Amino acid sequence: MKLGSSDLAGMDRRYRAAFVNCLSGFKAANLVGTREPGGDCNLAIMSSAVHLGSHPPLLALVMRPDDAGQHTLANILASGYYTVNHVGEAFFAAAHQTAARYPREVSEFAEVGLTALFDGDFPAPFVAESSIRMGLELREHQRLAINGTNLVIGEVVTVELPQETVGADGSIDIAAAGTVTLSGLDTYYAVHSLGRQPYAKPGTS
Amino acid sequence: MKLGSSDLAGMDRRYRAAFVNCLSGFKAANLVGTREPGGDCNLAIMSSAVHLGSHPPLLALVMRPDDAGQHTLANILASGYYTVNHVGEAFFAAAHQTAARYPREVSEFAEVGLTALFDGDFPAPFVAESSIRMGLELREHQRLAINGTNLVIGEVVTVELPQETVGADGSIDIAAAGTVTLSGLDTYYAVHSLGRQPYAKPGTS
Repeated sequence: MKLGSSDLAGMDRRYRAAFVNCLSGFKAANLVGTREPGGDCNLAIMSSAVHLGSHPPLLALVMRPDDAGQHTLANILASGYYTVNHVGEAFFAAAHQTAARYPREVSEFAEVGLTALFDGDFPAPFVAESSIRMGLELREHQRLAINGTNLVIGEVVTVELPQETVGADGSIDIAAAGTVTLSGLDTYYAVHSLGRQPYAKPGTS
Repeated sequence: MKLGSSDLAGMDRRYRAAFVNCLSGFKAANLVGTREPGGDCNLAIMSSAVHLGSHPPLLALVMRPDDAGQHTLANILASGYYTVNHVGEAFFAAAHQTAARYPREVSEFAEVGLTALFDGDFPAPFVAESSIRMGLELREHQRLAINGTNLVIGEVVTVELPQETVGADGSIDIAAAGTVTLSGLDTYYAVHSLGRQPYAKPGTS
């Protein structure tokens, strides 16, 4: 079937959200941990993490102005720090539940049954259940004029992960770490490898 | 194991690229099709597509200034149009091969054995082998000051996909469409569903 701009614009709002959220392809499933300075912890599932660069190691997150991530964004801007924790197969349902619109003073950790882990003086909580956990320092924030979404860019300043998942070349076997992927708003998947591909060079196809 | 900023900065360049590229989690695997106005076609695999919004339907791509996507970026800026095509399990190896640095006048379609499909007067080529194909109109381009990467935002103006993959609520079964995911620079995965999660509301965990 083929759809154009007017078909997309004419869809029911929820139908369109479900449809368009699937178009980008599979998404990263991460839990973002934050803390209001001197105050409450917050945890929110986000599917918008994207690699920006390796040196320095930068990740971007896209946050909508109107979703359950609004407390997360406020905490990041106030504290300058946040954590990004891979969602694992063993707790993906709890992770999804953090998308509910809890009041700001409620800790999603307690509500969904995940464990806040503080590490030294890092100002934001990690997710103890997560195998791959990163601490980030906010580097840039902008509101995209086109639709008011927030682009939040941070530098990865700490990484904790199972040593046995790191290969000799530096690549991480995130499938072995239990990391899941998702599609659209609510469908989670485990993966199985189709194999690594060689470094692409002209003439080797 | 635990790593800090100095550990990350001290890694060998290729090792660090392999490592940091895995940190964001699973990525969308898409082929971006472009054409130099009146000229050659170009096709490049990209793992940075991210959903920006549903109404209008907006996708962002992050493009590095120095990779094989430079011809793609030049063509998008010159023509204002591009296609985003899901990478399917049947042709992921050919899709990966588009990352090789071919000269601009070479069409990656021919080099890797994929088929350029033109649809009406849409100015960019689609990938015939892809089950889910979108045509996009460029809406915004900016160079991120932090590391010189390019943020390319486009509106989805056409979508072609198998009707049977669209559910009653609008969600698309992209796994049934054969779409794959990838991790890091070169490892591809098929998925199996862990199930859909209910709409998250407080008190339902």
